[in-house]
Parts: sequence; C-alpha cells; structure tokens
Amino acid sequence: MINGSKVLDHPIRWAMVGGGKGSQIGYIHRSAALRDNNFQLVAGAFDINPERGMAFAAELGIDPDRCYPDYKTMFEKEAQREDGIEAVSIATPNSVHYEVCKAALEAGIHVVCEKPLCFSTEEGEELVALAKKKNLVVGVTYGYSGHQMIQQARQMIKNGDLGDIRVINMSFAFGGYNYKIEETNAAAKWRFDPKKAGPSFAMADVGTHCLYIIEAMIPDMKIDKVLCSKDAFVEGRELEDNAFTLMRLNGSEHVQEGAKVYCWSSSINCGARHGHVIRVVGSKASIEWDDERPNQMTYEIEGEPVRRLERGAGYLYEEARVEDRIGGGHAEGLFEAWANLYRRFALAIEGMSKGEEEYGDFWYPDVEAGLAGVKWIEKCVESANNGEVWVKY
Amino acid sequence: MINGSKVLDHPIRWAMVGGGKGSQIGYIHRSAALRDNNFQLVAGAFDINPERGMAFAAELGIDPDRCYPDYKTMFEKEAQREDGIEAVSIATPNSVHYEVCKAALEAGIHVVCEKPLCFSTEEGEELVALAKKKNLVVGVTYGYSGHQMIQQARQMIKNGDLGDIRVINMSFAFGGYNYKIEETNAAAKWRFDPKKAGPSFAMADVGTHCLYIIEAMIPDMKIDKVLCSKDAFVEGRELEDNAFTLMRLNGSEHVQEGAKVYCWSSSINCGARHGHVIRVVGSKASIEWDDERPNQMTYEIEGEPVRRLERGAGYLYEEARVEDRIGGGHAEGLFEAWANLYRRFALAIEGMSKGEEEYGDFWYPDVEAGLAGVKWIEKCVESANNGEVWVKY
Amino acid sequence: MINGSKVLDHPIRWAMVGGGKGSQIGYIHRSAALRDNNFQLVAGAFDINPERGMAFAAELGIDPDRCYPDYKTMFEKEAQREDGIEAVSIATPNSVHYEVCKAALEAGIHVVCEKPLCFSTEEGEELVALAKKKNLVVGVTYGYSGHQMIQQARQMIKNGDLGDIRVINMSFAFGGYNYKIEETNAAAKWRFDPKKAGPSFAMADVGTHCLYIIEAMIPDMKIDKVLCSKDAFVEGRELEDNAFTLMRLNGSEHVQEGAKVYCWSSSINCGARHGHVIRVVGSKASIEWDDERPNQMTYEIEGEPVRRLERGAGYLYEEARVEDRIGGGHAEGLFEAWANLYRRFALAIEGMSKGEEEYGDFWYPDVEAGLAGVKWIEKCVESANNGEVWVKY
Amino acid sequence: MINGSKVLDHPIRWAMVGGGKGSQIGYIHRSAALRDNNFQLVAGAFDINPERGMAFAAELGIDPDRCYPDYKTMFEKEAQREDGIEAVSIATPNSVHYEVCKAALEAGIHVVCEKPLCFSTEEGEELVALAKKKNLVVGVTYGYSGHQMIQQARQMIKNGDLGDIRVINMSFAFGGYNYKIEETNAAAKWRFDPKKAGPSFAMADVGTHCLYIIEAMIPDMKIDKVLCSKDAFVEGRELEDNAFTLMRLNGSEHVQEGAKVYCWSSSINCGARHGHVIRVVGSKASIEWDDERPNQMTYEIEGEPVRRLERGAGYLYEEARVEDRIGGGHAEGLFEAWANLYRRFALAIEGMSKGEEEYGDFWYPDVEAGLAGVKWIEKCVESANNGEVWVKY
Repeated sequence: MINGSKVLDHPIRWAMVGGGKGSQIGYIHRSAALRDNNFQLVAGAFDINPERGMAFAAELGIDPDRCYPDYKTMFEKEAQREDGIEAVSIATPNSVHYEVCKAALEAGIHVVCEKPLCFSTEEGEELVALAKKKNLVVGVTYGYSGHQMIQQARQMIKNGDLGDIRVINMSFAFGGYNYKIEETNAAAKWRFDPKKAGPSFAMADVGTHCLYIIEAMIPDMKIDKVLCSKDAFVEGRELEDNAFTLMRLNGSEHVQEGAKVYCWSSSINCGARHGHVIRVVGSKASIEWDDERPNQMTYEIEGEPVRRLERGAGYLYEEARVEDRIGGGHAEGLFEAWANLYRRFALAIEGMSKGEEEYGDFWYPDVEAGLAGVKWIEKCVESANNGEVWVKY
Repeated sequence: MINGSKVLDHPIRWAMVGGGKGSQIGYIHRSAALRDNNFQLVAGAFDINPERGMAFAAELGIDPDRCYPDYKTMFEKEAQREDGIEAVSIATPNSVHYEVCKAALEAGIHVVCEKPLCFSTEEGEELVALAKKKNLVVGVTYGYSGHQMIQQARQMIKNGDLGDIRVINMSFAFGGYNYKIEETNAAAKWRFDPKKAGPSFAMADVGTHCLYIIEAMIPDMKIDKVLCSKDAFVEGRELEDNAFTLMRLNGSEHVQEGAKVYCWSSSINCGARHGHVIRVVGSKASIEWDDERPNQMTYEIEGEPVRRLERGAGYLYEEARVEDRIGGGHAEGLFEAWANLYRRFALAIEGMSKGEEEYGDFWYPDVEAGLAGVKWIEKCVESANNGEVWVKY
Repeated sequence: MINGSKVLDHPIRWAMVGGGKGSQIGYIHRSAALRDNNFQLVAGAFDINPERGMAFAAELGIDPDRCYPDYKTMFEKEAQREDGIEAVSIATPNSVHYEVCKAALEAGIHVVCEKPLCFSTEEGEELVALAKKKNLVVGVTYGYSGHQMIQQARQMIKNGDLGDIRVINMSFAFGGYNYKIEETNAAAKWRFDPKKAGPSFAMADVGTHCLYIIEAMIPDMKIDKVLCSKDAFVEGRELEDNAFTLMRLNGSEHVQEGAKVYCWSSSINCGARHGHVIRVVGSKASIEWDDERPNQMTYEIEGEPVRRLERGAGYLYEEARVEDRIGGGHAEGLFEAWANLYRRFALAIEGMSKGEEEYGDFWYPDVEAGLAGVKWIEKCVESANNGEVWVKY
Repeated sequence: MINGSKVLDHPIRWAMVGGGKGSQIGYIHRSAALRDNNFQLVAGAFDINPERGMAFAAELGIDPDRCYPDYKTMFEKEAQREDGIEAVSIATPNSVHYEVCKAALEAGIHVVCEKPLCFSTEEGEELVALAKKKNLVVGVTYGYSGHQMIQQARQMIKNGDLGDIRVINMSFAFGGYNYKIEETNAAAKWRFDPKKAGPSFAMADVGTHCLYIIEAMIPDMKIDKVLCSKDAFVEGRELEDNAFTLMRLNGSEHVQEGAKVYCWSSSINCGARHGHVIRVVGSKASIEWDDERPNQMTYEIEGEPVRRLERGAGYLYEEARVEDRIGGGHAEGLFEAWANLYRRFALAIEGMSKGEEEYGDFWYPDVEAGLAGVKWIEKCVESANNGEVWVKY
C-alpha cells in the first residue's frame, strides 16, 4: 500500500486557470493535486473576474505576485521566472478549454484539463500534435477512471479472466435535469447553450466518462461504427438531455469481432443520483462496477457464484492495490480517485522530462483520450442528426 | 387479501397438450391452474410419445378414458362428451403452438398457450380472428406479468404518478448460453434451429417477456419504429444469442411523444441468472423492477429519497393487493405470478361465457398480446437483417 | 430437479383442524399439502364456529359427510371409516394446539402442527412420548426451514465448509407491532394475552423460527445456557414485543466449545418487513441468509471475495437441489418452502409406516423440534423474569 | 455546500507524535488536518526511532529545526518559540496515548488523540480535568462519526423523526483476525498484548466506534447498566477477539426508559470487511447506516416504503449538508469524514481561544467522549470477568 506517499523528489510547480471560489471542480482539482505533495500550488488565474480571482488566490496563500488576472498574463509572467510554473490545470467553462490548453502548451507548460478537451476533432488533433511536438503531458480529468477497481478490471481483461469481450452495457444516467432546471439555476443554463457547452450535453457531460472507462479497461479497443439516438425531452432545450449510443467493435486481443457496446447517457433519469454502471460481458465472465460504490466490483464467472471484489483485498491484481491509501473496508471515494490520477500525471510529467516511463502498466487519461471523447461526441451527433443511422468510425 | 380463494362456482374442465413427465413448464402450468380450484384437470395428451403421455396422465390421476395419445384425438373425443373439456393449455415445443391453438379454437375450446403463440403475424392474426369469431379466450403465459408489482406499476402509470414516460430501459439478459451448451444439452439444441424455434432465440425466449410487461404497464403504448442489432456470439448458431432493440414510441396519455425504449435480450450475459430488469422513467418519477426479487419495486421521485415498495403493503394500489396469497414480507414467487394469471384466465373465460367483464381494471395477456410478441420479433428480425436499420411499426 | 413430482404411490388421506375461511395459515397449509398430490384433503373441522367451518369444507369440495363441526367428532367418526384420515394438520389458535395434537395421536393419526406445539415442556414431553409410543409422525411447520438454502447451509456445515462455528448472529425482527395495533386489529389482540398465546409473544411468534433454522443447520447443536432480556415497549402489553437472547453452545463436531448465539426477536422494529436474517460464522467462512430473499445465500470465506449462492445452481449440494420446482433465477417463495416440508412429512409418514427411512440426510421439523421451541421459550422467560440472568439449559 | 473552504483566518500550527513512515493512521491524520488549510504541519516527532522519525519529517518538508527525536523534546523546544505549535495529534501505539496527551496539555497544547484516549477511567478523568483546567481542546478521532449521515441521524433524532428510541442494534464485526494472524503479522501482535493494547482488543478496537456514533446521534443518552460476553476464539489470545454487549438505557428526551442497545464487536466475523452497521429503532421510524456505504442511510417509517437517504440531497437537514465537499451521487469516503472532524477540531480550538462557540449544533468527539469509551471498556470487561453479569454504569 502506498498510503499516498509522495512519489516525486520535488513537487511540480503548479497553477490553475478557473476553478475559483465556490467551484466544486476547482476544489477537487486542488484536493487531488495537493494531496500527496507531488504538486505545489504557486500561481493562479482563478476567475473570469480578475479581482475575484486574485482575492481567491490570496486566500489560498499564493504569493501576491503570482495571483494573476487572467491566464495569458499568467503564462507570460511565469515564463519569465526561473521558478515559473511547470504545469497548469484548466477548470474553466468548456468553451475555453481549447484555447487555454493550446496557450499552455505553446508556453511549454504541462496541462491537466477538464473534459471535454475541446469541441471538435480538428482542435483535438491540433492539441495532440502540439503536445507531442512540445513533449508535454496533457492529462484529462476523467476522474472516475482513477478508482482502483478500474485498474483491477484492466488487469483482469488483460489477463484473459473475462475471455473475449462480447457485450458492454453501460450507463451514466442521472436524474437532476428532468425538469427545466436551467430556468432557475444559473449553473445549469450554459450547459444547454451549444456556444458554451459544445455540440452535446448529456453525452459530453456524462457519456464520455463511460467511454473513457472502457478505453482504460481495454486499451486496444477499436470502435467500428456507432449509432446514436438522442432526445431533448425537456421542452426548449437546444442540446440533448438523453441519448443512447450503440457501438460495434472490431476484434482485438480480448474483444470478439463484432462485440457490441450499449451506452445510455442521460440527465433525465428521475431519481438516479449517478446511474453510472459499467458491465463488461466476456465469453468466460462478466464484471460490473458502479461509481457510487467504487470500492466494490462484481465478478461473475458463468456457472459459479457471483463474487464481490473489494478494494484493498489481497486477491486483487497488484496494479489495483498500489494506489490504496487506507485498508480495505474503509470507504475511499472520488477524491482518492482524482488523487490517483494526479499522482499519475505527476509521474507522467516526471517520466517525460526524464525520458523514462517505467511504472509497469502505466497509463493515464491523456491527450489522445481527450481527443477520443471529442471524436465520439462528433460521431454520435452526426449519427443522430442524420436520422439515427450507423456512422463509420 | 384474497388468500387464493376460489373465484368460480364450478371449476373449468381443463386439459393439457404437452408438458409431460419431467417438463418444468408443464409443472408450472398445473401448479398455477390447479392452485385454487378454478380449473380441474380432466384430460390430457401430455407427450409426443403416446404411451409416455398416457402413462403420465394416469399418474396424475386422470380417468384412463381421458388419457389421450395426441391432441387431435383428445379434441375429437372430448367434443363428444357432455362433460368435455372447456379449456386446454398448450405446453408443447414452439413449432406446434399455432396448429394446436387453431385446432382447439376450432373445437370451441378456450386456450392457454405458451409464448410464442406462433411464428408469423399472419398466423397470429388468423388466431386473433378465430378467437374473436368463436368468442373464446386465448391466454398467453407471459408468466412474470402476473406478479402483483406489475399491477402496481400499471396503476401508478395510469394515475400519473410517473408523469409522462420518457425512457424505458429494460433487459432480460441471462448467461446460461454463453458457451456451446447445445452440443451437450438436448433441451438447448432445438432452440437454435429456426424450424423448431422460429425466427429468433434470445428475443423470442426472453425479450418478449420484457415487451409484454411494458404493454401491461402501459396499455395504450404505441411503438412507432424499431431498430434491432442482433448477434450470434457463440460460433455456429443459426439464431441470435444476444440482441439489442431500440424503439421509438408515439405519444399517448402517459407517454411523451418520441419516448425511447431500450431492450437488451441476451442468453450470453455471463454470470447473470435472469438479468430481467424493467426501468420506466417518467417526467416525475421512475420505477424499477427485477423479476428475481419480484416482491419489491423501487419508486424514485426526483428530489426525494428512493423508496422501496413492498408487496402486501397497505400503501399499494388496491389492484396490486387483491391477488396476495400471504402477507407482505413473506416471499411470493413465480408460481404465485402464474397462479394469478390462471385466476384471470378463469375470470376471462367465465366473463366471456356470461357476457360480463366486471372486474375493475381487468386484463390478462390475451391473444392480441400473443400476436404483439410475434410481430415484434418479426420487425426486429427485419431490422437486423436489413443492416440494423429503423423499421416502421 | 424433482419438479414437484409426486413422491408417494397413494396420497395420504388428510384433514385440517382450524385454518378456515380467510385464514392465511389455513391457505398455506392446503397449498403446501396439496401441491404435489402427496396428500388428499378428505375431511375437516375448519372453524370454532361449526356452521362456518362446515360451509367452508363444502366449498373446498369435501364430501358433506366428512365436514365436521369440531375436531373431536372428526377423530371419532373418521376412526370408524375404512378410508378414515391418516393425517391431520392443526391450524388453530396456539392455545388449542396441545389438546388437538394429543387427541389426534391418541386416535392414531399423524399430525402436522403449527408452532408452538404447546405451552410447556411438560406438555411437549408428553407429546414426544405419545408420538413415539404410537409410532406416529408429528411435523411442526417451521415453514422457512423448507427453503432449499437451509439444506445447502446444513450440508456446508456438515462438510466442514465453515470450519468450526464460533458465532451465530440472527434476528427475526419485524416492525408491524410497533404501535398499539391490538386496539384496532382483532387478529393481533389474542397475541398479547398469555392465556391464548402462551408465555411469550415475540420469541414464540418469530424467534423460534430462527432457533429451528439453526437446529436444522447444525443437527448436533447443544445449548449450554441462555440469557434473555425482554421488553414490552408498547404500553400495556402483558407479553414481550421485543427480546434479545444470548446463548452459549457446548462444543460439537462443527461447533467450537463456547460458541455464542445472538438472537433478536422483535415485533417493534419499525420499517422492517421480516428482518429475518441468519448469519453463521465459522473459523473458515460465514454464511448469511435472509428469508425475504430466500433464493440467495452469501458465502464468505475470509480472504476471498464474498460469493452469492443461488438456488438451482449446479454448484450447490445435491440435497439443496432435489426439491427445486423450477430452474434457478426464477423466484421460488415461501409456498414452495412449505410444500417442501409437506413433501418430507409425507415421506416421513410413509417411511415410518413402512419402517424405512432411506432418503439420504433426511430430516424435517419433528416433534422434538416442537418441544425444543417450547423449552427455549420457557428458559428465555425464566432468564428474563429472574433479572436477565444466565439459565442453564 | 462548503466545498471544504478554509474556516480559520490563520491555520493552526500543528505537529504530530507518531504516525510516521508507512503508517496508515499517520497518513489519514495528515490528509484530514491539511485538507483545507486549517492546520499547518510545522513540527513532528514521528517515530519511536528518532532517526527514522526525523528523516520522515524532513521528507514532509518540515523545517529541520523542528524535526524532533521525541515528543518531550518537541514540547520543550516548541514552548520556547514564539511560533511554537498550538496543537498536536497523537498517533502512537495505544499504550503511550495517555502520557503524551497529558504532557501536551501540561505544555498548553491542544490535542487530537487516537482512541483509546487511555487505559483507565482514572487516567481519563485526569485528562478531562486537565483539559478543563487548561482550557484546551482534546479531540478524539472516532473518524466514522465525521460522516455527514451521522449528522443527519443526530438531527432526525433531535427533531423527533424517529419518535422515542427503543432499540439500537449495532455491530462492528470484521473478519481479518479469524486466524492466528499475530504469528505472522507484526502489526497485529501488540493488539493482543494487554500491556500494549490495554484491557480489550475487539471492543476497544472497533466497538468503541459504535458507542461513540450513538453518543453523537443521541447526545443525552444515559447508559443504566451493561452486560458483556466476550471470547477469545482463536487459541492463545490474551484479549478478546469477539464480544457482545447488552445495554439498558435510562429514559431521556428521545429515548424510552429501558431502551436496549445490542452491540457486537468482533474481529473474527469471517468474510466481513467492516461489518459496521448502526440501526436505531424508534417508536415511529428506524434508521440504518453502514460505514462501508457512508453516503447512504435508510429511513424506515413503519407503514411506509423504506427510503434511502443520500448524502448531498436537498431533503437532508442543513447540518448534514454544510460539510459536503462535492455534490451528492459522488462518493465521499472516510478521508472526508476525518477532514470534517479536523475542521471541527479547528473550530473548537478557535472557539475556545476566543471564548465563543457559535456554530449551531456544534459537536465533536471530545475528551469526555474519549473518557466514555474507556469507561465502557472497563465496565464491559468487569461484566465479562465476573461471569457475564449486569454491571451498573
């Protein structure tokens, strides 16, 4: 067990764009990054409103010289310092992700970015190329993927415990937007405005989490084609509040040719908190995981009793245990999942700097994963808009 | 509570075709029909092998004169008796359902038939017309629909407790056929032979149960179009072992125009026993029911705690309570669900004889329901075979 | 799988005392006895009110000559018939169990009796001796013990799968009597009247079910001493509505010396339907079973994932499978559990008649089990009344 | 929602004794204290081995001058600094808690101490008096009590939602010590040595968590008497690995006179991870909470459907929501529960310094709670050792 021990000799000098006072997402970024001293918060441009942002930075104990009014100023000024920031996290509204990410990369700064990384595959490919050219890390905060049980699933699949995958049935279907919440809740309003939210709400907001989780579980997964049916059930919405995506997979090492993926993305699933459940069915066994009970995963070998795997247990794969912060039985939660991701971002940053990457089956949601999410949304929207037809991937 | 009290003055004289020695389905038909003295088993042609069938009939205590070698003889001889059979249940292999059903109707006998009622809509429509012309009941044993919680769901929807239905997510996805079981298990073999099983395995075997349950919950449900993707994941199968059906609904009293139904039918869902879960999402609330825990149903009003409804409780609708045989808390099971259906078949038979039908919101899976299942399979197969495209209903 | 097939060549001629019109318990006795043609209902004295009882008997299709006004008349008249009853079930109020049981045994009739068998160990020992002398079966309807999972538990323990038992934590703690229900509900009133209900309510009504289940699981279990704390939380009750019993066990083949049993019997456990959960902890593994989900049982080997065993599965012991009436996944319920018991009563009656008992690990809740329940109540009451002290068993 | 915002203007200068490299408990103390900038780690004596402790302190970035070889040196040196520590957390083995706590209080330093606070009520009372005299905070890390659902339970009880409490059934019964783990696992060895662990293992290790949770839920709870039965099931253990405690409560505002508490403390409950479940039964409703799913709590009003309350929901009491760090649905875990406690320790420290305590229904596990745990163990051990008899509290 690592007990969250520090993994780097020197913490990475780190800043944030967005995620200011009262922001849930800003708080979880900081909690995760600062958890184990792998990052040190030294600068920030936390708010679209410069005064509010600078005041908040000061509250967080940041040197007044490094409380910036906006990200451009920050990147410029930090570049002039010997101890300038090495990495930045972007927790702004969606519509700004691309430009901030691009600016950071151009300034030679590693990036951690909220999903969606951007709004189009063109933008995404540009960022992929830029990151590669600059030899910089771009981590995308598909936070749920940081749970140790996702590691366990990945290793089980890799080791053939499930046999060949035939069906994946997954959903992230919550209920909070089943009425016209955007009329009274400002934080909900921008989500249905394509200019600010991009071409999708439900799929972009929650469906991409499902997508990334299965990408993480099955690294060589290849989507052959998709078909998407989307709806705006609550009157007057410009973007979908509910969608279903069918996918056909090509065969790969542990995937049967023609395997199917069923993905329900919804914000109108009354009564559900998250409804975020991933079931992977193989020729030998199935696994099922629910983000609301992240310390457990069921493992079902046909003809044997259903088993409930528990985080922290000795029977798990080593990869599912190295990030434990406390013994099994004790509930770890989403903050630990995020901290696991940030730990890996730190390792990736260090690894790339040093030209090394020797951490076993090391992975993290990277710039390609960010692009994959954007591409998936694009293809789904194309399918839905053309009459809910199959679209080649 | 009815405590299973007898509902008819005189039991209906009843026979069986098929369902002989060792047949699970034969046993459940008899258990259900004979449970409360509404039916009396007086004759039978229980087996394709006449000797075996007659011997079994004798074992059941049937008068030797009425132990028949085959259904044709039975219908002919019984017609000559003053006390001839009034109703017959058909528990033969699928391929014979249609001909026996037709013969029974022509002989003026009420029918209870296993699903699928037949193999084509033509046949189904013929049976519908024949039943109407002869003024006879045809009950179809969608057994799960007999659970009291389905009644509760129907009443909740009728009373607007869910608001307008927007999404139905359902599955009957079990795991027992995830390997080539048909090579070693004779009882599984015919299921993948289109001549004996009809044009579908997974959808016909289990998916139609889901379909009927939502028809029972939402009597005025109208399917606008369907799209089906089906697979034979285990090599060499002629019929699908897994399928997914997307449906679009037309609007009706409690259904929003464009509501979507997602239906996963599978026999290769490793580790699952039934995996038969129905979730109905409305604009105000959702309900969810699982056939393996049939005494419970969740009721989720957005913004309120999830509630678990329990069979037998005073807060349920009257229709969900009248068929209770024992107080809440005690587990009722599938045999009671079937007995509920047979009770309603008896009421329908009596009601039709008497020209009355005064039992409140009285319903049972009738010949139209049987036809609906056949039509659904036909449309799904058409969609799948044409490239998994939308097919107008 | 037996599919409920008949096990006797000729059904046992059977009658009932009590359990008349509207009685839940009468209905479940009949459903269970008549399920598979091992019993034939030929006579009855169903009600304390002779007219009502006889009318109900007639409704059930009993020969008018054998619809009796009371049990004494029935035993006398039936004794004079060549085809007189061979067995009788007693479903009267508790206070009459003893006298009817005794009269039946004296008349040479096998008995199935509701629990409690009687009110004192003296009475119980008398019945034990009488049954032995007359070579007659007395079955006691601890109905939950008929579930196949109890068989599974018994075989697991016998085979050492749990190692040595150290702790049993069990409860039957429901909530329906948490207010003064007896003021408005006549059926509840007698339960708090010691003259009619005997010396205990909660322990007698529900706790004895727990006790018998562990006796069935561990046939050689020996109670060393008990300590009981009981309460009448709802004002004005003469009998307890809640009790806790601590027990110390002597060592036996699969029980560690000094093992402890914790048993919570309650009728005031708000919100619980049954709350009937049995957990057996051994040195190697634990099992846990809940009567409201009787088709499942958890099996927990320390250091391994928790397993959920399912009725009907191939990995269960043979003894847990022979009574299946339908395949796993399908929900069996309490009616099947009772039918299993009645099937065993039939086998016991036949076996005793024939002087044979060759059914493997054959057992049923017998007269000794009835006595054991009565003794347990007596000891618990003694402990509680003496200041909640330990009482030697 | 607070999103973990900082609650103090200036972080408290804080040190640790014990909890060094590789210590799980040390890690959770630091994670919790440092989470939201209410504490600043400025000094430490982390290990019984001075070199190892000082090296670890340095690793954590502590000023070399303030990396101490032992707690005595630390208290002495820090007292000489203007910016000396204001608070210290004690995460040493149990046997040292008392002396370090006492020394800290004498040095005028606020304390956060692992449970058990000490080994005897005499010691406990001394610490209570000392804390009072010095006007210092002693917080005890009953970590599970920091979960927001415990706040919810406290407010529900206070508001009469449960009516009068009649029964509390609780357990902390895990399985990891069901074999002689101490032979191979050094960390387990001291736990069964009375000199190092005190007079109890299972009750002290886990049972006291249950006890404190109900004290937190019912602040005016009064124990009248206790009876304890304890066992060392694994051969050769000097301290119990399993215990059951019965308690009788005196009446208080929301507790019925004579209410009963059942508490199972165990380390040999095979297969269970924590088995830490608290059920409180009142005259109107019950609640039930399980530390392994800390974001949920069931709420069961008799006669109504069981409700599942969810952390973060709008229907919860304000007190149960103010400490949320992220929206409902997202899993918070034990680290957040501890962070909630540390936040309250900070508020208490500030409040006491300022002579204010104005935070609504403000509470935290304080020195009295620490004493209560010690007293409970003492009384339980007395009862068990005297033949498992009732002992007046």
